[in-house]
Amino acid sequence: MKRIRYETYSGIYWGDLEGGNVHRLASIMGRRTGEVQPLSDVRLLAPCEPRTIVCVGKNYADHVVEMGGDASNLPTEPGLFLKAPNTVSNPGEGVPYPAWTENLQFEGEMAVVIAKTMRRVTPEDALGHVLGYTCAIDITARDKQRQDLQWTRGKSADRFMPIGPWIETDLEPSETRVTTAINGDTRQDAPTSQMIFDVPHVLSYISQFMTLEPGDVVLTGTPEGVGPLAVGDEIRVEVDGIGTLTAFVEDAPA
Amino acid sequence: MKRIRYETYSGIYWGDLEGGNVHRLASIMGRRTGEVQPLSDVRLLAPCEPRTIVCVGKNYADHVVEMGGDASNLPTEPGLFLKAPNTVSNPGEGVPYPAWTENLQFEGEMAVVIAKTMRRVTPEDALGHVLGYTCAIDITARDKQRQDLQWTRGKSADRFMPIGPWIETDLEPSETRVTTAINGDTRQDAPTSQMIFDVPHVLSYISQFMTLEPGDVVLTGTPEGVGPLAVGDEIRVEVDGIGTLTAFVEDAPA
Repeated sequence: MKRIRYETYSGIYWGDLEGGNVHRLASIMGRRTGEVQPLSDVRLLAPCEPRTIVCVGKNYADHVVEMGGDASNLPTEPGLFLKAPNTVSNPGEGVPYPAWTENLQFEGEMAVVIAKTMRRVTPEDALGHVLGYTCAIDITARDKQRQDLQWTRGKSADRFMPIGPWIETDLEPSETRVTTAINGDTRQDAPTSQMIFDVPHVLSYISQFMTLEPGDVVLTGTPEGVGPLAVGDEIRVEVDGIGTLTAFVEDAPA
Repeated sequence: MKRIRYETYSGIYWGDLEGGNVHRLASIMGRRTGEVQPLSDVRLLAPCEPRTIVCVGKNYADHVVEMGGDASNLPTEPGLFLKAPNTVSNPGEGVPYPAWTENLQFEGEMAVVIAKTMRRVTPEDALGHVLGYTCAIDITARDKQRQDLQWTRGKSADRFMPIGPWIETDLEPSETRVTTAINGDTRQDAPTSQMIFDVPHVLSYISQFMTLEPGDVVLTGTPEGVGPLAVGDEIRVEVDGIGTLTAFVEDAPA
């Protein structure tokens, strides 16, 4: 099932997308209200309102190598960082190219949306706390990521995380594929089976020290192929079995 | 004025504390409802529900030096990191000593609570977006801060930020003093005038890339004197003109 968050002239709602029609829900996990309308009549929003966004920094071996790491010395635990909630950006919206960076980059990823409070779960129990999966772009100011004390400005500027277009609730996260295209050219293309730490392992690891709540988001890492962006670029991230997220790079407001 | 968030048998409220009495408010910035009760009848809660918590990593020169830095090579921009919202802990509550760290440390700080959406403000306009100031402890697992890819586990484990006891709305943030005592022994004691970047400068800097919202929190850095904690320790952080925040280190739940 595809769960969406959307806006109409009358407000913002959760819904299920089925056969091109939107079935309104009483809440993110609620029952159907009976109201139905075509997808073309609504505007898709980011399918989550996370309090906390946790990301895995080095979760594909080929990406570790392209960032200057050593393939014979891969992480033995998930390396985690946070993105702040101000980064959430709706599908199809612009990503600002801020004036303070000279190296804005894309990182296509599969994202996990949490359904139930998750604290100290085992890998075996982790997926039972997941609502579903969506596509995300971890926009990164690579120069500031490298220069600053931590990755805060490099990763958490306003609208630095386009996410969507919806949550797919029926997906086996280890059996799909993440693809990123810039202006139609494929740049990243990897099966999620190549993750160093699979989704159950990542969620269990986080939950040993941090309680995640419904609506929180975990980004599962980016494959090899990251690179710079320019104003006007179209970014498309596709996860097989979910769909395609699109974003556009635009001049930052003056 | 001292603004508090508190719990009674009937619910959770915001209030003003005046002459030992709590005047209930309709909301954090709302008007008084007319209900009054003695402070001794309520339980104080963390005086904020932040979506985003931004911290300055190296903002007192003597602390930079004690962490191994060079006093002749101080930061030229604020070094920022995030703490996740799961870190918020109520005044007087226990801080868990997790089994996965062998070096849990205290960092006493003055915290700023935001009142109005703050985006791209000048230093001159920054304090006009502040509700007030409170005390906070940036609990840090120093070993994991040093070992991990980023400071996520070292700084953002559950209950790693006791904060309170209330928000003082009338304070000049550059003219006060932060003091931390462990079991009654003073360990940190510095005037806030020693900050490398003062509060208006820090807030303006953050707001150039990140929009802060009402209730968000900025920790302004810790002075020289940080050190290890043990189970049973009492931590007291005092900021002159605000009051004293107390927390206790306890065994983590099994």
